[in-house]
Amino acid sequence: MSASFSLIADSWGAAARAGVLQTSHGPIETPAFMPVGTNAAVRGLTPAELKSSGAQCVLGNTYHLWLRPGSALIQRAGGLHTFMGWDGPILTDSGGFQVLSLRRHCVVDEAGAMFRSHFDGGEWLLTPEIAMEVQAMLGSDIAMVLDVCPPYPCTAHDLRAATGRTLRWARRSIDARHAPGQAVYGIVQGGTDLDLRAEAAAALGDIPFDGYGIGGLSVGERRERTWPALSAAVGNLPDDRPRYLMGVGAPDDLIEGIGRGVDLFDCVLPTRLGRTGTVFTSRGDLDLRHSRFERCDAPIDPDCDCAACASFSLGYLHHLFRAREELAMRLASLHNVRFLVRLVADARVAICEGSYGSFTADVLHRLGRRSLVEQA
Amino acid sequence: MSASFSLIADSWGAAARAGVLQTSHGPIETPAFMPVGTNAAVRGLTPAELKSSGAQCVLGNTYHLWLRPGSALIQRAGGLHTFMGWDGPILTDSGGFQVLSLRRHCVVDEAGAMFRSHFDGGEWLLTPEIAMEVQAMLGSDIAMVLDVCPPYPCTAHDLRAATGRTLRWARRSIDARHAPGQAVYGIVQGGTDLDLRAEAAAALGDIPFDGYGIGGLSVGERRERTWPALSAAVGNLPDDRPRYLMGVGAPDDLIEGIGRGVDLFDCVLPTRLGRTGTVFTSRGDLDLRHSRFERCDAPIDPDCDCAACASFSLGYLHHLFRAREELAMRLASLHNVRFLVRLVADARVAICEGSYGSFTADVLHRLGRRSLVEQA
Repeated sequence: MSASFSLIADSWGAAARAGVLQTSHGPIETPAFMPVGTNAAVRGLTPAELKSSGAQCVLGNTYHLWLRPGSALIQRAGGLHTFMGWDGPILTDSGGFQVLSLRRHCVVDEAGAMFRSHFDGGEWLLTPEIAMEVQAMLGSDIAMVLDVCPPYPCTAHDLRAATGRTLRWARRSIDARHAPGQAVYGIVQGGTDLDLRAEAAAALGDIPFDGYGIGGLSVGERRERTWPALSAAVGNLPDDRPRYLMGVGAPDDLIEGIGRGVDLFDCVLPTRLGRTGTVFTSRGDLDLRHSRFERCDAPIDPDCDCAACASFSLGYLHHLFRAREELAMRLASLHNVRFLVRLVADARVAICEGSYGSFTADVLHRLGRRSLVEQA
Repeated sequence: MSASFSLIADSWGAAARAGVLQTSHGPIETPAFMPVGTNAAVRGLTPAELKSSGAQCVLGNTYHLWLRPGSALIQRAGGLHTFMGWDGPILTDSGGFQVLSLRRHCVVDEAGAMFRSHFDGGEWLLTPEIAMEVQAMLGSDIAMVLDVCPPYPCTAHDLRAATGRTLRWARRSIDARHAPGQAVYGIVQGGTDLDLRAEAAAALGDIPFDGYGIGGLSVGERRERTWPALSAAVGNLPDDRPRYLMGVGAPDDLIEGIGRGVDLFDCVLPTRLGRTGTVFTSRGDLDLRHSRFERCDAPIDPDCDCAACASFSLGYLHHLFRAREELAMRLASLHNVRFLVRLVADARVAICEGSYGSFTADVLHRLGRRSLVEQA
């Protein structure tokens, strides 16, 4: 196994857990939230800022990097870490999610996906083997297998077909792995069909992956259907491997996910919301463009230790957004990344102290949400 | 006098000079380059980054701040320093340059300028007295008087009329000054008419301003006409007051200006060029979007100590610009500000060491420019 994972604590009916994941670029204390650096940069932020926000691992998008600037160019530059100036762990996705989202410009069969680049219209082929090869060239610490993420909603037939193909592609991927030091994670699909999720997880768990992604959730389904599907997957995966809930990052979703045994999360939410002026706080989201902040001298969140909250008022940030100043997006993104990283780090402390139940109740109460945990 | 100025060295025929300008928010070692923070932010950069770039003073645009978020709002927030989180010196312009640029939406008479806001179309009146009052509310360390910057080219009659009105408005401004601790600078106009420049400078020099701006240069005239006009102004201003060449910031222009006795400069160039991918180097400008940088592992300028040059390659910056990543603009702007601040700081050292002549020759030679100093 390329990356080793040790559990140091669990609590709350043994679901929530804290661990340490070793990678070729250092350890990740789990649970952990990973910001997304689509084009070899987390939108608007430097690696130094990410580090100061407490982010331990960043995500790179294989589809984007493969097409531009190209995996060969990044390999020549010394790999993605050197290229983007981030010396901590990097996880790359397989590119499948983006390619399959191209819909009209993508034809998928058992071999793989033939698609047209959204950059230049050129024709490209993505297969499980190519996804592994490209990620090996990028040199990420954790590579994800190519999977089929079915749309939501979709028919039972299509869901089963996508889940089956995902499993067959997972087997091809593990056979194609060849980068020493790079961990490879399989991906559990199955939509919100609990039997299919459980079945997919059990079958995937028999393949010796270093960890397991749980995909196809938070794609439009109601949260009442998300969490049972997550639990069905988690309950059938090996306990001793990390579980990564893909594309999920709202504050309450992180708390719910950790409560169900998730170790890793990624999401574009903190930077995407930050660019449009929405910031997380312990009492819910704020829209900085709202005129009620015009004369407000307080920071975004008095409990936050990020550089934006340390130096700038809501009134100033409101002004920057109204004036469309680039600095506004940067400060809001930085705050949001720090907020999520800190929330998950606080969750880890609570798990280690055996108090994750009351931590969850407290966080969700402040956010004005009712926990959905009981319904899982 | 609200701000005191001491000359510590001069050289090269007594034109280039080094000094220390005391302000209510600390000293400025001159010559100095001031980045422009139009909307209470230097585009894309934090105050901490500005400080680390060596910038000593930033410029705020009165027109923009007066209209949005409003001088009363900024005053209520504790003044511009507190509002934007910059605790060093701030210079504000009078707003006149922007208002008079509105052309079709501005009517100027002896009283002042009646204009329509470009934000909401509302009608506003800017007079010499109002310009002083708004800047007092902003709380800048150095306030500029309202002047009339004639277009280039313009008729001799219009040029003389603008210069005369500028002088009369200067007298009204000094009578209207009332902010303790705020220095007030007059502005020399006169276009490229050497007699008019000399006359305007001499008349303005008789008014006890804390310093003198030299406006209306670098507005489209050829450089062969800029420098004689600058020298005509400088030669007729009091030696013991700082001279500020407004809106000039190209590397070679800074060197030429300092060589003619300028102490302060401001310009949007480093951030404006940075946002479009052009960066300064000691060997001339580079366009980061050019494909020749695609596989280049070197930094922008190996001699530069900015955060962009310390951590990122030309190849990576090229990629960020192609991918339209916000981080690209930020890093290029940061580099450009640092480049100009450092160039001017190096000039100061050369002046103090009595070697400004050879410094100039060396800098201009590397930039591939011939000095225009001899033609002054």
